[in-house]
Amino acid sequence: MQDTDPATPRSQAERLAAWVRLEQTPGVGAVTAQRLLARFSTPQSIFSASHLALREIVSDSVARAVCEPMPDACAAYLDTVFDWLADPDHHLLTLDDPAFPPLLRELAMPPLLLYACGRVALLSAPAVAIVGSRNATGQGAANARAFASALSTAGLTIVSGLALGIDAAAHEGGLRGPGSTVAVTGTGADRIYPSRNEALARRIAQEGCVVSEYPLGSGPTPGNFPRRNRLISGMCCAVLVVEAAANSGSLITARLALDQGREVFAIPGSIHAPLAKGCHILIREGATLVDCVDDILIPLRVAPLATLARQPDSSASLHAAQRALLDALGYDPVGADALGALVGCDPAVLAGRLLALELAGHLERLPGGLFQRVKR
Amino acid sequence: MQDTDPATPRSQAERLAAWVRLEQTPGVGAVTAQRLLARFSTPQSIFSASHLALREIVSDSVARAVCEPMPDACAAYLDTVFDWLADPDHHLLTLDDPAFPPLLRELAMPPLLLYACGRVALLSAPAVAIVGSRNATGQGAANARAFASALSTAGLTIVSGLALGIDAAAHEGGLRGPGSTVAVTGTGADRIYPSRNEALARRIAQEGCVVSEYPLGSGPTPGNFPRRNRLISGMCCAVLVVEAAANSGSLITARLALDQGREVFAIPGSIHAPLAKGCHILIREGATLVDCVDDILIPLRVAPLATLARQPDSSASLHAAQRALLDALGYDPVGADALGALVGCDPAVLAGRLLALELAGHLERLPGGLFQRVKR
Repeated sequence: MQDTDPATPRSQAERLAAWVRLEQTPGVGAVTAQRLLARFSTPQSIFSASHLALREIVSDSVARAVCEPMPDACAAYLDTVFDWLADPDHHLLTLDDPAFPPLLRELAMPPLLLYACGRVALLSAPAVAIVGSRNATGQGAANARAFASALSTAGLTIVSGLALGIDAAAHEGGLRGPGSTVAVTGTGADRIYPSRNEALARRIAQEGCVVSEYPLGSGPTPGNFPRRNRLISGMCCAVLVVEAAANSGSLITARLALDQGREVFAIPGSIHAPLAKGCHILIREGATLVDCVDDILIPLRVAPLATLARQPDSSASLHAAQRALLDALGYDPVGADALGALVGCDPAVLAGRLLALELAGHLERLPGGLFQRVKR
Repeated sequence: MQDTDPATPRSQAERLAAWVRLEQTPGVGAVTAQRLLARFSTPQSIFSASHLALREIVSDSVARAVCEPMPDACAAYLDTVFDWLADPDHHLLTLDDPAFPPLLRELAMPPLLLYACGRVALLSAPAVAIVGSRNATGQGAANARAFASALSTAGLTIVSGLALGIDAAAHEGGLRGPGSTVAVTGTGADRIYPSRNEALARRIAQEGCVVSEYPLGSGPTPGNFPRRNRLISGMCCAVLVVEAAANSGSLITARLALDQGREVFAIPGSIHAPLAKGCHILIREGATLVDCVDDILIPLRVAPLATLARQPDSSASLHAAQRALLDALGYDPVGADALGALVGCDPAVLAGRLLALELAGHLERLPGGLFQRVKR
């Protein structure tokens, strides 16, 4: 294979094919790929190099694999890739592509390829990662949504991992503002995991961006997720941890972020709340405790929200009676009977008002017949 | 007045009288007192100095006041002091007394006198201050009590300000361990404020120590409390803030402690809890976030509690049914009806069990017919 004019569709396809083939070559991991690229500059040059030249810097088995004709499996995979790329919303970014996320390119071992669905420009935008527990509490998810929405309103892109709980809430919040959201998945970009987030993933692919370093068709192998986490933090200038158990994956992401020189922020909670423990550990290790969005915007030198147009108060349109009910609720779980006694109204009327508030997203129904106000 | 043998009761009384008189002399504040003591060594020498010698370092009016015969009011106050000292549990510690708290003596402007009721040896023991809101939540007070009890068990004396809320809970917890507790009051040591803490103050005077820098009979003047706070932190190697609003007195105490080179610890909470705000501000300013007692003991190089004999579990003696009820309660407020549904028992039986648990201190009855488990 020889270098051809990079401007023609054909030469562009050949360029991509060499990148994909490089990553699919047995024995070529991140370290070997780096070494080959450092010596031969492009994948196309690597595949036109002699066994002798290759043997100077890689093992004999890798040199042989590179010199062999393209295996059938690889050719078949390339067909899959080009079929997938026929959709104009699908993109394959190579490490040397100007659209490749600049912060990721600076990592010690960046991925060679990124498969992206949606607005690839978001991958180069100033971004904050929001991560946390899959088993988030209602308030934890509401906090993630509120912080994501406000940071996105301030122009920052919200990056997360499309998991249930905090991740999903962060993406939802990010979609509310101009910063939008990026989902970094641990599966191929053509697969959605978990399936409960399918509708969300479709929306992100349309309005934001879904990105993966894994080959198309890759399933949710457990080993993929820790590796994926280094992309989440690597793509961002800061990581916010919302709710995390001690020894959880979110802590690993946060520590990776510290190693990568990123700012790490964490939301505290009660010392009796298991999902606050991880955040507390991070704060003791040097993460910044966060009470409100400006605690993130100010250190990042983004204009604090007070100077931006305020979002309309979502409870402004409520009746006085509904508002009184919300005020009586507070932020701790309350039973309906206790609530009725507090606001002094008939159980049937109360049930109707509670339902209306729940549907409007102002409160959450908890196990045991309890209700809790959700601060958004 | 001339120096006499300090070993006789008479000479001891004359020595104390000169200290009291020095502090009562109009125009003699902390700075002037320091200057006079630096020049003349003892109050008795100050009062036998000539106007000319005094005039070299203090104003004419102060020199005159020192040279004048003792005013009647001062003589009357001395009678009050010696009457009070007739009780063997009452002590007047002068700055040069070996029993004067060593950490306080190192302050830039230490008090000249400390009036103390109880075990003055506690004033020189390794101590931790626990401070926080007068309007503490039930869980906040329980946290203060639990931390105080554990720190006292580890041998540390708990110092606080005898206020309602966190202070009172800290003293109660301190009394449970060998470290005991010291109450630093903003009134004279013969007066108790607030009156709701009268029983607690009497117990502290018997088992711990109540101490004040204010003359006997001094009432609760608002200005006394900030000045008193510098003694609370000054007497301790560390300050723990349990619940505090933003801009509250507890923050002033904690910042004083930082200025005095003390360790500052703070317990976090929900970002929606107003009384967590102050703790969060302190953590952002450099206070150490505390999840459990070992987070304090380890930095202070006191043996962590795991190596101490464990306190018996206070809930060990409960019936299985009571324990099930406690487990169902969790640490959030729950209504009796929701609780009945959770544990599946008759309302009358439930009411009886709740009352028993409340009397045993395992749960707290909140406004609105709610119950909350108290972690002790």
